Amino acid sequence: MLNTQIIEFDLKAYLSQRRDLVDAALERSITVIYPEVLYESMRYSLLAGGKRLRPILCLASCEFAGGTLDMAMPTACALEMVHTFSLIHDDLPAMDNDDYRRGKLTNHKVYGEPIAILTGDALLAYAFEFIAVQTQGVPASRLVQVVSKLGHAIAATGLVGGQVVDLQSEGLQNTNIETLNFIHSHKTGALLETSVISGAILAGANNEVLQRLSRYAAYIGLAFQIVDDILDVIGTQEELGKTPGKDQQAQKVTYPSLWGIEESKRKSQELVDLAKAELVDFGDKAQPLMAIADYITARRK
Amino acid sequence: MLNTQIIEFDLKAYLSQRRDLVDAALERSITVIYPEVLYESMRYSLLAGGKRLRPILCLASCEFAGGTLDMAMPTACALEMVHTFSLIHDDLPAMDNDDYRRGKLTNHKVYGEPIAILTGDALLAYAFEFIAVQTQGVPASRLVQVVSKLGHAIAATGLVGGQVVDLQSEGLQNTNIETLNFIHSHKTGALLETSVISGAILAGANNEVLQRLSRYAAYIGLAFQIVDDILDVIGTQEELGKTPGKDQQAQKVTYPSLWGIEESKRKSQELVDLAKAELVDFGDKAQPLMAIADYITARRK
Repeated sequence: MLNTQIIEFDLKAYLSQRRDLVDAALERSITVIYPEVLYESMRYSLLAGGKRLRPILCLASCEFAGGTLDMAMPTACALEMVHTFSLIHDDLPAMDNDDYRRGKLTNHKVYGEPIAILTGDALLAYAFEFIAVQTQGVPASRLVQVVSKLGHAIAATGLVGGQVVDLQSEGLQNTNIETLNFIHSHKTGALLETSVISGAILAGANNEVLQRLSRYAAYIGLAFQIVDDILDVIGTQEELGKTPGKDQQAQKVTYPSLWGIEESKRKSQELVDLAKAELVDFGDKAQPLMAIADYITARRK
Repeated sequence: MLNTQIIEFDLKAYLSQRRDLVDAALERSITVIYPEVLYESMRYSLLAGGKRLRPILCLASCEFAGGTLDMAMPTACALEMVHTFSLIHDDLPAMDNDDYRRGKLTNHKVYGEPIAILTGDALLAYAFEFIAVQTQGVPASRLVQVVSKLGHAIAATGLVGGQVVDLQSEGLQNTNIETLNFIHSHKTGALLETSVISGAILAGANNEVLQRLSRYAAYIGLAFQIVDDILDVIGTQEELGKTPGKDQQAQKVTYPSLWGIEESKRKSQELVDLAKAELVDFGDKAQPLMAIADYITARRK
């Protein structure tokens, strides 16, 4: 029954249409003025394509909870700005020292290290301004909650904390599953969860709905990372748009290195099923979020 | 008459008492948990002393506009977090490559470059969360305004934009006064102005008061930077807590290099007088902000 519903929902068209909406809003979000190099660098990384998974989750969750696309679009854009900031800083020579991202040269390879650091900083700060200035038709109290969640998902309690533990674990052969879970629940999971939760907060969702969505998001967040690890092993540079095999090269402990590829695939599918089970009581309106959960394991990049 | 008032106001005791309040609040703002190195690094730079000028301006402006210290303290702390983020990133090897700050080794000299970058990121994001979560007794609509102003003061439109132009101008002998003003109104002025304005917004100040304070802040912001440039020429490392003579070494065009020391001193005094003139109609309650304006030119670090 559940599977039939999802087959009927045209996820590919849905994702493509939402990605276009998000891309158009992101395109409008930054105009190049003096000092041009900074704004160009922000646009270079922000408009480099990408799945726009975080914005799409935010929009879907807002509609799921009874809100409109307009209510969530500024926060959706802000989430992509924050994600882009984290990619730029993670790719820096002092961090993962990566040359390619989203099929293009990384920011510091094009603009140099100082501008890359500052571009990340500018995107991070602008994300908060953008939510506060651009959101229309939403009570201020909800915006304050979104700002609070977003800050928490980025700071030491979120993706920055995850990146620190990731750096510390590099080259260590004895990283355990608890550490690996900490890294990913912070580095990837926190912002994915905030993407889902913030959409629902903007729509004025009640606690029951927020708690369901929070568990949904935690499950797909972990599934997403397991699939990322799998793709790093089996994907090609062309498919991924970034350098594959980086984890192994950096001697990083990953889910496939702990569990093997097959068991990793099985676990990610199990997590997606758990995520979907959280929303099954909500009927048809949960279709997009259910389909996105399926997309997490089906994706090739 | 004006001068008599200010002599009666004990600025030294005022600043010292406020600094203690701010330091105590900052001390409570970060608890060390896993991953410890990140939280320790945040505390290392945030609690390294400093004048706490931005928090003190925010508190003073909130009281000036009829608010309480409690209303403004979370924003005051957030402003110091943002200032500290900007110092950590400005000091990085890829930027100004500075070894000392506030009389101590810079963050990256102690924790290394990756942690220093991430510490700045964490402080920046936490600042927004801190305002949103910790502020009590203030309507949410005012918090949204503060978030908007703060984001604007940090991003490409604020201190990050100023730092980019500063980097671009390094070693150029033909930097003109317009570029120098752009650098400082963005790199230093924007956050100082937001410190003053945010306190008044939290207190619910009307537009007339906000505009006066905005001009007051613009004047003292520029005066502050001119004095900074002067101190870089005539100060000692012991007094400054950071390496003096850096500007000349980096062949930076500064106000003293354009105008000479005496003319720079005269201009900074003129700006302080203009700042004070904006507040003269408000009587005794403007005393702290007036005295802080005087302190800008009188300070030795």
